[in-house]
Amino acid sequence: MRFSARLTVIMSLFTIMTVLASLTFKKTQKVIFFGDSITAAGAKPGGYIMKMKDALAKKGNSDYDLIGAGIGGNKVYDLYLRMDDDVLSQNPDVVFIYIGVNDVWHKASYGTGTDPDKFEKFYTAIINKLLDKHIRVILCTPAVIGEKTDFTNQQDGDMNAYSQIVRNLAQKWHCGLVDLREVFHTYELSNNPGNKESGILTLDRVHLNEAGNQLVADKMLEVLLSK
Amino acid sequence: MRFSARLTVIMSLFTIMTVLASLTFKKTQKVIFFGDSITAAGAKPGGYIMKMKDALAKKGNSDYDLIGAGIGGNKVYDLYLRMDDDVLSQNPDVVFIYIGVNDVWHKASYGTGTDPDKFEKFYTAIINKLLDKHIRVILCTPAVIGEKTDFTNQQDGDMNAYSQIVRNLAQKWHCGLVDLREVFHTYELSNNPGNKESGILTLDRVHLNEAGNQLVADKMLEVLLSK
Amino acid sequence: MRFSARLTVIMSLFTIMTVLASLTFKKTQKVIFFGDSITAAGAKPGGYIMKMKDALAKKGNSDYDLIGAGIGGNKVYDLYLRMDDDVLSQNPDVVFIYIGVNDVWHKASYGTGTDPDKFEKFYTAIINKLLDKHIRVILCTPAVIGEKTDFTNQQDGDMNAYSQIVRNLAQKWHCGLVDLREVFHTYELSNNPGNKESGILTLDRVHLNEAGNQLVADKMLEVLLSK
Amino acid sequence: MRFSARLTVIMSLFTIMTVLASLTFKKTQKVIFFGDSITAAGAKPGGYIMKMKDALAKKGNSDYDLIGAGIGGNKVYDLYLRMDDDVLSQNPDVVFIYIGVNDVWHKASYGTGTDPDKFEKFYTAIINKLLDKHIRVILCTPAVIGEKTDFTNQQDGDMNAYSQIVRNLAQKWHCGLVDLREVFHTYELSNNPGNKESGILTLDRVHLNEAGNQLVADKMLEVLLSK
Repeated sequence: MRFSARLTVIMSLFTIMTVLASLTFKKTQKVIFFGDSITAAGAKPGGYIMKMKDALAKKGNSDYDLIGAGIGGNKVYDLYLRMDDDVLSQNPDVVFIYIGVNDVWHKASYGTGTDPDKFEKFYTAIINKLLDKHIRVILCTPAVIGEKTDFTNQQDGDMNAYSQIVRNLAQKWHCGLVDLREVFHTYELSNNPGNKESGILTLDRVHLNEAGNQLVADKMLEVLLSK
Repeated sequence: MRFSARLTVIMSLFTIMTVLASLTFKKTQKVIFFGDSITAAGAKPGGYIMKMKDALAKKGNSDYDLIGAGIGGNKVYDLYLRMDDDVLSQNPDVVFIYIGVNDVWHKASYGTGTDPDKFEKFYTAIINKLLDKHIRVILCTPAVIGEKTDFTNQQDGDMNAYSQIVRNLAQKWHCGLVDLREVFHTYELSNNPGNKESGILTLDRVHLNEAGNQLVADKMLEVLLSK
Repeated sequence: MRFSARLTVIMSLFTIMTVLASLTFKKTQKVIFFGDSITAAGAKPGGYIMKMKDALAKKGNSDYDLIGAGIGGNKVYDLYLRMDDDVLSQNPDVVFIYIGVNDVWHKASYGTGTDPDKFEKFYTAIINKLLDKHIRVILCTPAVIGEKTDFTNQQDGDMNAYSQIVRNLAQKWHCGLVDLREVFHTYELSNNPGNKESGILTLDRVHLNEAGNQLVADKMLEVLLSK
Repeated sequence: MRFSARLTVIMSLFTIMTVLASLTFKKTQKVIFFGDSITAAGAKPGGYIMKMKDALAKKGNSDYDLIGAGIGGNKVYDLYLRMDDDVLSQNPDVVFIYIGVNDVWHKASYGTGTDPDKFEKFYTAIINKLLDKHIRVILCTPAVIGEKTDFTNQQDGDMNAYSQIVRNLAQKWHCGLVDLREVFHTYELSNNPGNKESGILTLDRVHLNEAGNQLVADKMLEVLLSK
């Protein structure tokens, strides 16, 4: 083979490799949002997942395929019980875990909340199953049950405690963290001078209104794109 | 009447007035501490009521007769139900009301806590019955269920909320206030660097240890003597 | 006196007596139904109080004036707190007390149910205030939270226990009794072969449907007219 | 080979086979009792597991090795979380599952009971993991929280409901069943004429006294030996 011929071959191979490489880099990442009714609503029009899609589209970023996997009333062990069917079977690249409100809330409303040590155990089991599959895992602290800023919402003690468990797990397992509890509290200090229990970021003390969905979308996107 | 006779009369009257005045000033004030198991323990050796007695004795102050009326497990409506028998029948001059821990705690431990609006209604009814008898009323906010300083104790939200109700009632009805919730929190910030849940001012997250009884005694005495 | 004059007098006296008698017999009895949301609904079209009115009208019985005094969410101590305003101020002749469902139910749904001994104390206080005014008092056991017939409804244990407290109070204070718990259970055994939790006498496990309102109306009327 | 030689060989083989078979039959069965504090106490002197051992020893039956695996406060998902470590790692032949009291009780005492559908899901997951390993599984209904016979114990509704879930699971998965709820109720009807809440089969409404441990031991042994 002559030199030019060899060069042509080499160039061609290089082109193919480049194309292949670009295909690899452009491979869409499947992102699953795994949670409760807040996430179920997040996948509907106006929800935080839809707002993230819109924001990515505006940026011309087509790297991510965002998929909601929220079911109303879910607690951490509900996620555990359905993670094979609803998450692992879809081979996601990234999973946001956004759980904890019902683990706390159901103590008072049904008598079936989750003990903090069990919350940590099931949460750890979920994280480990995901990490075993080399899935990127991003944890979210539960935001609020009641928006009063002076820590007089009935569940504030538990919400602070369970959020701390989530923060510790993120650190221990080197997961991403969207600290919604912190983000919301900071926002409320500036935007809820009347110490209202709802209407600032939530409709009903728990479920997100327009501003709440926007805030969650912004913070999640920030963490998603930070890597 | 001669001068000396007049002087004798004047002197005599002065003596009588002095004696009368001293009788008035020396009339012992009956002080009842109306509460739950914390107050029941407060009347035992080492308890906060005993510490107040000791402190008054040391000052040589014999103006007050301190009487414990605490019963374990009591909530605000237990006080209401037994106030005729245990308080009014004794014709007290001063009543400390120290209640609220079980109203919050029994939500989780028995499902029979007190709704905040009912807490306020029964508390108001007690205050009014006492004020109608011209009894001096001093309210105490419930101190702690758990001593962690970062507001991660399970009942912190409710403890803050019910304490706020008590503060508002003190203001509304011009009662004295011993803000134990505030006093304890300030003390813990300085003395509980490890964020422990018990052992600083309590034995078991709720019931007072030596330091806790001393702190309560100091603050109550301060308010009692402030008038 | 001539015969005609005597006759006139006798006739006149007879007339007066008749009028007096009719006044006595015709004096309308004011009947207050004192309870929770079940009684609030009972005063609306199709409700058990309206059905009692209809039944009395059909009989041509105008002896009773039926008045609803139900408020949603009420527990026994809510009745106690509002009995002066809502009952005694109206000078009723008869009071039906129909309470207990929320005292049991709120244990699980809010953590603010009523301890059984407090239930008995406040219920006793209500009865005594009414009896002191010579008001006829008729107690009702709480019917159902869930219609399953095999005692697998979550609150069946408590519903049985609190109903027993009401039965004992009726006996102790010689009050009338409408044993709705017993009446409903007997009805369900015949009419709920599928062991359903709602739809037989209730809409939603607690609040009465058409058949439930009819059954309550029938039994209450029976007891009201039994004296 | 002559006939007698062949006969000898055959006889020898038969003997060897018989010995081998008897060895197989005599292989001790490892039996694990998987449960909560009732089972933890069952493994102590006087406990139901010790009574079963004694009974087997009296019969000269050495076929079973009985092992307690009870931990106080356990609910069904605690069993699930520790079944690899505490049960499967021991390669048992038989597992008794005796759980449910805390799943019901913790609703009122901590707000962290188990929803009935989750109770069924985790229970099912445990059964399936055991059946996959060809382990014989025997289910026990939770006996009592309170011994009153007229279904006025607070948790009777749930205890009946959760027991029914266990019965249904035993039928569905062809497991053995020790219906302690039924056994206890029958015993109480004969032996608790005073409708006492404890002292007949329990020390404290839940944990077994001497008679309770004996009754559980008798019934479990009956089912264990029934196959």
